[in-house]
Amino acid sequence: MKRLDTTQPDFRAAFARLLADREGDTARVDAPVAEILAAVRTRGDEALCTYTARFDRMTVTPAGLRITEAEIEAACAAVPAPLLAALDLAAGRIEAFHRAQMPSDLRYVDADGVSLGMRWTALDAVGLYVPGGTAAYPSSVLMNALPARVAGVGRLAMCVPTPDGVLNPLVLAAARRAGVSEIYRVGGAQAVGAMAYGTATIRPVDRVVGPGNAYVAEAKRQVFGRVGIDSIAGPSEVVVVADGGNDPRIVALDLLAQAEHDAMAQSILITTDPDLADRVATAVEAELRTLPRAAIAGASWSGHGAIVTVRDEDEAATLIDEIAPEHLELLLADPEPLFAKVRHAGAVFLGRYCAEAIGDYVGGPNHVLPTSRTARFASGLSVFDFLKRTTFVGAGPDALRRIGPAAVALAHAEGLDAHALSVSARLDALGPDTDRT
Amino acid sequence: MKRLDTTQPDFRAAFARLLADREGDTARVDAPVAEILAAVRTRGDEALCTYTARFDRMTVTPAGLRITEAEIEAACAAVPAPLLAALDLAAGRIEAFHRAQMPSDLRYVDADGVSLGMRWTALDAVGLYVPGGTAAYPSSVLMNALPARVAGVGRLAMCVPTPDGVLNPLVLAAARRAGVSEIYRVGGAQAVGAMAYGTATIRPVDRVVGPGNAYVAEAKRQVFGRVGIDSIAGPSEVVVVADGGNDPRIVALDLLAQAEHDAMAQSILITTDPDLADRVATAVEAELRTLPRAAIAGASWSGHGAIVTVRDEDEAATLIDEIAPEHLELLLADPEPLFAKVRHAGAVFLGRYCAEAIGDYVGGPNHVLPTSRTARFASGLSVFDFLKRTTFVGAGPDALRRIGPAAVALAHAEGLDAHALSVSARLDALGPDTDRT
Repeated sequence: MKRLDTTQPDFRAAFARLLADREGDTARVDAPVAEILAAVRTRGDEALCTYTARFDRMTVTPAGLRITEAEIEAACAAVPAPLLAALDLAAGRIEAFHRAQMPSDLRYVDADGVSLGMRWTALDAVGLYVPGGTAAYPSSVLMNALPARVAGVGRLAMCVPTPDGVLNPLVLAAARRAGVSEIYRVGGAQAVGAMAYGTATIRPVDRVVGPGNAYVAEAKRQVFGRVGIDSIAGPSEVVVVADGGNDPRIVALDLLAQAEHDAMAQSILITTDPDLADRVATAVEAELRTLPRAAIAGASWSGHGAIVTVRDEDEAATLIDEIAPEHLELLLADPEPLFAKVRHAGAVFLGRYCAEAIGDYVGGPNHVLPTSRTARFASGLSVFDFLKRTTFVGAGPDALRRIGPAAVALAHAEGLDAHALSVSARLDALGPDTDRT
Repeated sequence: MKRLDTTQPDFRAAFARLLADREGDTARVDAPVAEILAAVRTRGDEALCTYTARFDRMTVTPAGLRITEAEIEAACAAVPAPLLAALDLAAGRIEAFHRAQMPSDLRYVDADGVSLGMRWTALDAVGLYVPGGTAAYPSSVLMNALPARVAGVGRLAMCVPTPDGVLNPLVLAAARRAGVSEIYRVGGAQAVGAMAYGTATIRPVDRVVGPGNAYVAEAKRQVFGRVGIDSIAGPSEVVVVADGGNDPRIVALDLLAQAEHDAMAQSILITTDPDLADRVATAVEAELRTLPRAAIAGASWSGHGAIVTVRDEDEAATLIDEIAPEHLELLLADPEPLFAKVRHAGAVFLGRYCAEAIGDYVGGPNHVLPTSRTARFASGLSVFDFLKRTTFVGAGPDALRRIGPAAVALAHAEGLDAHALSVSARLDALGPDTDRT
């Protein structure tokens, strides 16, 4: 963990190093992924079964790729009732927020008599990738699937690897609760290829979303254009802004909740209170002695963690925008003034009671968020990822007379004569505007 | 040009071939583009000058990369006044539509007492790529720059190659009218690299947009993640739905306006009237005898054009959704019933008077649209491309008591104990809800 202080002369250099310390090219897996995608595209189900045997150590036939209703039923029955209730509370809250997020269509006639508008429609089919093993989070299934459902997507296909044939009951229960229509036991780049190109068993989708390892990320990058994809997630981060009124242990736990995800995660505390800074540093070390995932959280904290003392909230706001954090906690008596100053952050948690973990599960907004400083230009997953816009314009004779000649002039200037003629031929057919003479 | 008829037994096979006839892998330029990007990243301006000398046959120093105010002034002075007026009419209409498109923030408190919302903010800096030569369209400068300005982007940098040092006055005039802040005489993958990574002269941006050749498209693909990009445009298309009440020559000109863009463009007429079909086919041939860009338009029409006769509007709607056209003209007495049935199209032009070319220049909606069937999942350029969302959630003691325990249960189920502790420690500190006993 690094200690930084904005009053120190080397602060800017130290802060620049902090921002850059997780950069660097990720492993290049272009070639193996291209090979897998080509195999899936040309050989379909047979390639899926071959790769599943190789990577997930299990034999499966094309007919067995789809997880059956009976298997899903059995999985749901295996989940304790209190956990199903928690899943249901989370799902209800996520649905409600994403319903509130739904945009409205636009339609109006302007002063030139032109009809204009924009209509939102849902995608027909979406594919959700869910990682296997320890990164298989049922909460992520809800966060990826429910916005698609709320947006009105008709078909939701999900792919999840089942290494050694082991199913994750809570993931299947979350998929059922979220309205996933089909689930396949396929993972990796081959799953992304199947959803993008389609096979005899898995029909193609229009967009592929969901987290995954480097192979999955590269596969999404390679199928981009053929289908839509969501953002490619990098290492995750939190910035916690806390004043002296906080319990240092709670601040420490918030920092560690981020750090326990991944040794590459980054937790940064920003505070105006040097005393709190010291006490949080001590509390983090104390918690690391008992935390089950202390190895990961400790590696993250020692490698990428930081405590930054600042003069005031204005300075905090400036640093936050430079970091553009995925998660921002404002553990302040009144978080609103600082919140109003922040421009770049994926999701913000307001006030001392609102742990970031609330947002991971039950807050309502999405927990799939722009990582690694991409909140400068990107947003969290939302209904907008599952909708597209059709714009439209209508012009009658009068409107054409008003705006058509400018189109003819510009088309000629661009050397596009058929464009110009397509408008001027209509103007000629109309003749002079006798209504106006 | 192919003639298809939905009543013929081979229709489905012929239609599938029509949909697929422009597919196929584009030229792979990954390696040369990666090399250019690496050079720009490590050597900065010097690499830009070297590539500009090589590709654009002109000597430029770092200090000369930026096009000066005096050059822009001189360019604007060289544009005839009527053309400037047409540009201004177009710009005003594009601005007005994109202002109407601006979304609203969301903020509410739900039944559990949780504060929730979503705030839209503009990107800080955007880079516009403008191709050189014949594909340098001033209208595209307006269409790319104005939505960014309307969204509130503070800094708009533009890169345009100037082969042999030749500036395009109308492109510079459009850039000035659209509020572009900086213009650089750099093109190709090197321009994309400069905007993504920054050099001493060109500060980095947060998102790169604008059309370009295969090198520019591949460069955008490779910098994606570091910065945002817009969609990567493929060959363009129009579907024209026309009934017997249309002048065949006007329908033919609309088909040719698409075809004259590019030999890979695709123009499809759908009609219930076999007689119109014949007369449009004849009219296209007649226009091709005099059209200046007849070589391109003729290659597009003969290679990819089609006339499809259908039984009724329902059949037309089904085919349109399968094509998911970039542009859709409904040249019908009442276009609304068919428009209501269409789900997948980039932009729609309503009624006999509204040529697609109106939308290219002066309609108001954006002409940067999803091509090559991507309207299934993608949308045209808009203010949404230059905004991002920050979601937020706030929970006080009562709200935490209601929703916190479910978060604790789910965090434990996912094996994330610091997550669980960060919530349960707060619940413990609150103690029992004495207000409620």
